Amino acid sequence: MKVGIIGAGSIGLLFASYISSSFEVMIYTRTKEQAFEINKYGILLQKGSEQTISLVNALPITEWKGTEALAIVAVKQYQLQSILEKINHLPFIPENLLFLQNGMGHLAMLEKIRAKNIFVGSVEHGAYKESANKVNQNGEGKTNVAVFQGDADLLQQFSAPFLKEFPILVQADYYEMLLNKLIVNAAINPLTAILHVQNGDLVNNHYFFHVLTKLFEEISFILNLENQEEHLKQIIDICKNTAENRSSMLKDIEANRLTEIDAILGFLLAEADRQGKKAPQLESFYYLVKGKEMERGRVS
Amino acid sequence: MKVGIIGAGSIGLLFASYISSSFEVMIYTRTKEQAFEINKYGILLQKGSEQTISLVNALPITEWKGTEALAIVAVKQYQLQSILEKINHLPFIPENLLFLQNGMGHLAMLEKIRAKNIFVGSVEHGAYKESANKVNQNGEGKTNVAVFQGDADLLQQFSAPFLKEFPILVQADYYEMLLNKLIVNAAINPLTAILHVQNGDLVNNHYFFHVLTKLFEEISFILNLENQEEHLKQIIDICKNTAENRSSMLKDIEANRLTEIDAILGFLLAEADRQGKKAPQLESFYYLVKGKEMERGRVS
Repeated sequence: MKVGIIGAGSIGLLFASYISSSFEVMIYTRTKEQAFEINKYGILLQKGSEQTISLVNALPITEWKGTEALAIVAVKQYQLQSILEKINHLPFIPENLLFLQNGMGHLAMLEKIRAKNIFVGSVEHGAYKESANKVNQNGEGKTNVAVFQGDADLLQQFSAPFLKEFPILVQADYYEMLLNKLIVNAAINPLTAILHVQNGDLVNNHYFFHVLTKLFEEISFILNLENQEEHLKQIIDICKNTAENRSSMLKDIEANRLTEIDAILGFLLAEADRQGKKAPQLESFYYLVKGKEMERGRVS
Repeated sequence: MKVGIIGAGSIGLLFASYISSSFEVMIYTRTKEQAFEINKYGILLQKGSEQTISLVNALPITEWKGTEALAIVAVKQYQLQSILEKINHLPFIPENLLFLQNGMGHLAMLEKIRAKNIFVGSVEHGAYKESANKVNQNGEGKTNVAVFQGDADLLQQFSAPFLKEFPILVQADYYEMLLNKLIVNAAINPLTAILHVQNGDLVNNHYFFHVLTKLFEEISFILNLENQEEHLKQIIDICKNTAENRSSMLKDIEANRLTEIDAILGFLLAEADRQGKKAPQLESFYYLVKGKEMERGRVS
């Protein structure tokens, strides 16, 4: 099976590295220079002290034709719009598309694209891109995937080879799957990004933990969560299990990149608005992260 | 007139420097070493490119007898408790005490001390202590003072000589005076401390400004403010006029010191509680600053 990976950020490189052991992978990059580096040196995966090199073909995104059996779209949510426009103008209508964006803001956009089967996924690996062709994986994780539209046949076939070293689990309900991830991201990411702290600090510092629980109360209220205790426990467990990690949003702020705040808190605020509910803390944290994005590149 | 200054932080050094031109000043320090430095080299005041040296006598706080005509208590709010205990055990009952703490949390404590006249003040100078005997004054400012208990005679006499270069203005209503300052501090200090930004960023970054106005709404609600527009305008003006300044709370966080958060947001939260009102943003920001204090000395 031929698999295309759209986007060569941390998640794109991570997937290319693992998946290329079982499938023929073509990774599509934003720049020619990155494609050149990957073609020349392969993709380096660093995991603890272990380093693996995977020889993967790369092309600039402008060369994508849509012919692969599966294309994994691994760009950030805020880069998705231009990719979706591209998809609707590909020479071939894609058979299977898997979208790996955080949050739920992109679901409405996916309804409008042409493809036979559309899948969504939620990635729980911690990874960061060290250079054009090097990705660092910290901690074990998994990927959940589910059908958004169409049937699951290809998804089953795709997920089978990686069970042990790179688990890809097919879930029944895409909405519940993404919601679960959204709740975790909404609680952990903005706070760590605003405070510049590691995930573990949100539970180890009891003042920060107080704010985390108050924020979670607002999230529960907006989403009408019934199993609140379970969700809060999941958030706490993730903070503990990834105590030394910096959340993706914190890493984005530190690297002067845009964050996924619109896909996460923006989605929840729109939901609050739709239900006529107030969410003063969510709103504060949303604007604080937006403000931090605006400070990008400024010396403080 | 003999004036004692209790505490040789930025405000104590600043006052000693200016006041010693008209009065006989004794500054009381926490450590013997600092008293030694001040006695040997005087106090250096840096204001822009201008430097002034004032020869001021200094003693460790343990030597304070309470005999001066006026004692100015210039310690931080969280150091006040031990000073108040000291006052109640001085060999002489002090004639006149002027307290320069931020916030309003200390007012209840002042009711219990023995002294003929008690004054409170609110300092609007920007100053930071560069070393044991050097203070840097950035920007022009003034000091407001008012009677808390007793009569104003000495206050008038004390404030008269400094009108131009170091204005000390006697106000009629101590409560209104401190409240005004509290509102400004509550809006500006926690946000700048959490975000690590200068005062001007709160109005120049429109996302941060949105959070500032939402926070101000909660402050207004708790204090039942009538002239909201005026207060908000004052906050905005101060942010603009001190755009390049770091708030005292930010400087405290950056220097790994405790902040005055309890005197400022703590006071407002207690007030909200007393009235049965909710203040979710104030509460979040209170705990975020408390959490930041707890991170002191940790490497992030």
